[in-house]
Amino acid sequence: MRITALAGGVGGARFLRGLRSHLDATPELADAELTVIGNTGDDLSLFGLRVCPDLDTLVYTLGGGIHEEQGWGRADESHRVQGELAAYGAVPQWFALGDLDFGTHIVRSQWLGQGLSLSEVTARLAERWGLPERRITLLPMSDSPVETHVVIEDGDAHRAVHFQEWWVRMQAKVPAQRFQAVGMDRATAAPGVLDAIRQADVVLLPPSNPVVSIGIILGVPGVRDALRGTTAPVVGVSPLIGGMPVRGHADACLAAIGVECTAAAVAGLYEDFLDGWLVSQEDAASVRLRRAQVRGRPLLMTDRAAAAEIAGAALELALELRTA
Amino acid sequence: MRITALAGGVGGARFLRGLRSHLDATPELADAELTVIGNTGDDLSLFGLRVCPDLDTLVYTLGGGIHEEQGWGRADESHRVQGELAAYGAVPQWFALGDLDFGTHIVRSQWLGQGLSLSEVTARLAERWGLPERRITLLPMSDSPVETHVVIEDGDAHRAVHFQEWWVRMQAKVPAQRFQAVGMDRATAAPGVLDAIRQADVVLLPPSNPVVSIGIILGVPGVRDALRGTTAPVVGVSPLIGGMPVRGHADACLAAIGVECTAAAVAGLYEDFLDGWLVSQEDAASVRLRRAQVRGRPLLMTDRAAAAEIAGAALELALELRTA
Repeated sequence: MRITALAGGVGGARFLRGLRSHLDATPELADAELTVIGNTGDDLSLFGLRVCPDLDTLVYTLGGGIHEEQGWGRADESHRVQGELAAYGAVPQWFALGDLDFGTHIVRSQWLGQGLSLSEVTARLAERWGLPERRITLLPMSDSPVETHVVIEDGDAHRAVHFQEWWVRMQAKVPAQRFQAVGMDRATAAPGVLDAIRQADVVLLPPSNPVVSIGIILGVPGVRDALRGTTAPVVGVSPLIGGMPVRGHADACLAAIGVECTAAAVAGLYEDFLDGWLVSQEDAASVRLRRAQVRGRPLLMTDRAAAAEIAGAALELALELRTA
Repeated sequence: MRITALAGGVGGARFLRGLRSHLDATPELADAELTVIGNTGDDLSLFGLRVCPDLDTLVYTLGGGIHEEQGWGRADESHRVQGELAAYGAVPQWFALGDLDFGTHIVRSQWLGQGLSLSEVTARLAERWGLPERRITLLPMSDSPVETHVVIEDGDAHRAVHFQEWWVRMQAKVPAQRFQAVGMDRATAAPGVLDAIRQADVVLLPPSNPVVSIGIILGVPGVRDALRGTTAPVVGVSPLIGGMPVRGHADACLAAIGVECTAAAVAGLYEDFLDGWLVSQEDAASVRLRRAQVRGRPLLMTDRAAAAEIAGAALELALELRTA
C-alpha cells in the first residue's frame, strides 16, 4: 500500500503522525509506505541560513522532536543563539529560532552550499529523525526555491511581503490582496513527487491550509495534472470546523482569493481531482459536492489518538472509493 | 597617545586587557587610544560559517565576555547547536563551538554575505562589546581571506592541513614541516592597519605566537615596512619563559621554521624593527641583542593585575625609548 499526502506544517504534520500510528496499529496496513510532499513556499532565508518551516515541522513531528504544545519548533528548546543575534542588532527578530532548530538550519545551509539539492538535504535530515525506518519518505514539493509573497495595502500603494512576515509578524491581520508564488514559473517538481502521486494507491490531503500550503503545492508544474490523472482515490480532510479554521489563518487566506470560508468552498478548490471529502460533523449537512463523496466525522485533533482516528476515517473513505 | 599592537589570540588578548587596565588606571594615559591589529590567518569556515578565532578571543576578552579559565570562547557557554550538528553527522566536530559563539559566527557570516568587509563586520562586533567606548579599535590584519596551512608528513608524502586542524585536532603533535599563508599573495592590509603602525606613538608586540600569530601579520604586504619605517618605538614581550611557551605550541612552531626556542631567537625574528624586548627575568641574562634594549621582568600573566603590570612594563620601556 502506497499512500501519498500533500502537507503544510502543523495541521498536516499532526494528521500524518496520526496516520502513521493508525497504519502501525493496523496489521494489514503496517507495511504501508507513506510519502509526504511538503510545502516549501514558506521557506525563507534568515541570518543567511535557509529555513524550511513546513518541512521542519513535518520532520520534527514525525520524528518525535516537535514542541508538542506549540506545534512547531523543537521540544526542550532554548534561545541563546537568537539572544546573541539580537544583541548584535541582527535582523529580523520577529521569527523565533531556537538553538536546536538553528542546528537544522545551519546543517541544511551547509549542505545546500556544498551543492546538495533540497531533496537530498531533506532526506539526510529525515534519516537522522528515523523517518525511513518508519516507512515515511519526506519530499519537498520542489528543489527550486519558491517563496510565497503576500500583497498587502500600504497606504495608497500595494507592496509584497514574504509570507512569513505576513503570517508571523503581522499575524495575518493586515488584509492580503493576493498571494504570489515567487519562483514558481521556474520551478519543477522535486524528484519523486509526480511519481508518488501517479503511482499511489491512495492520495490524502491533510487538513492543511488550502491556499498557502496545499494551494502552493498544487501550483508546482505537473502536480495538479498528476492528481487529475492518478488512478488512486484522492481524499481530503477539511481544515475548517463550523466554517472556521482550527488554528492558523485559513480564513484570511481564503478571503484574499475570494473564496468563502466553508468546507464546501474549500472542496471547490480541489474540484477537478477530489474523490472524497471528510468534513466536520456539524458541516456535513451543508456540504453537497457534485463529484466527491462527503463524510462527516469529529475533526478536532485534540490529541494523538484523535488524529489517528481522523486519519483512519480518511483512509477508510479512500479505501472504500478505491474498491467501489 | 596612540598605541598600536599586533596580536594573536589568548596571550595577546590577556596582555591587551591588562594594557587597557593599566592605561585606565594611569591618569595621564587614560585617554590613550589603543589600536589592535588581529591575526586572521587562523580563520576558517565551519558548517558554512566564517569563524575568526583570534578576533573573537580579542573582542570577547576586551569586551568582558570571555571564558576566563579557558581563555577562548564565551563565559557561561552551552553546546546545544553543536550537539545537533553532530546528530546530523555534520563535520568537522573537532572544533568546539558554543551556542553564544555561534551567534557571532552566524551574524558575521550574514554580514559578510551582504557584502560587508571583515573590517566592517569586526567594527560592528566590537561595537556590541563596547570596545569603542573603551578607546579600543580592533582591526583585522586584512580583509582578504588568508588561511595558515601547515605542511605535515603523511607517510612518504607531505600534505597541508588547515592551521586549526593541526593546532586543535592534532594538538600540534604532528611535526610541522612548514607553514603556508594561503591567500597572502593576493592580500592587502585592511583599511587603517598601515596608518595605525606609521602614526603610532608606541607599537607593542604582545606575547603572542611569533610564528603563526605575529609572524602571519608581519607577512601582510606593507606591515613589516611600516614597522621598519615608523618613528614609534616598537617593543615586544617575549612569549617564552625559561625557553618554553607559557601556553600554546610556540615551540613546535619555532621548530618548524628552524628557529631555537629562546627569547633571543624570537627577538631575532623581529630584528629589523624591534627597539625593546621585554623578557622573563630568568631569560634576561642570556639575551643579548645588537639593536634592541632588553629588560627582564616577571612575565607570567597569572591574573589581570599581573597582565596589567607586564603591559605597564612594556609601555614604560617604550616610553623611555621614545624620549631617549
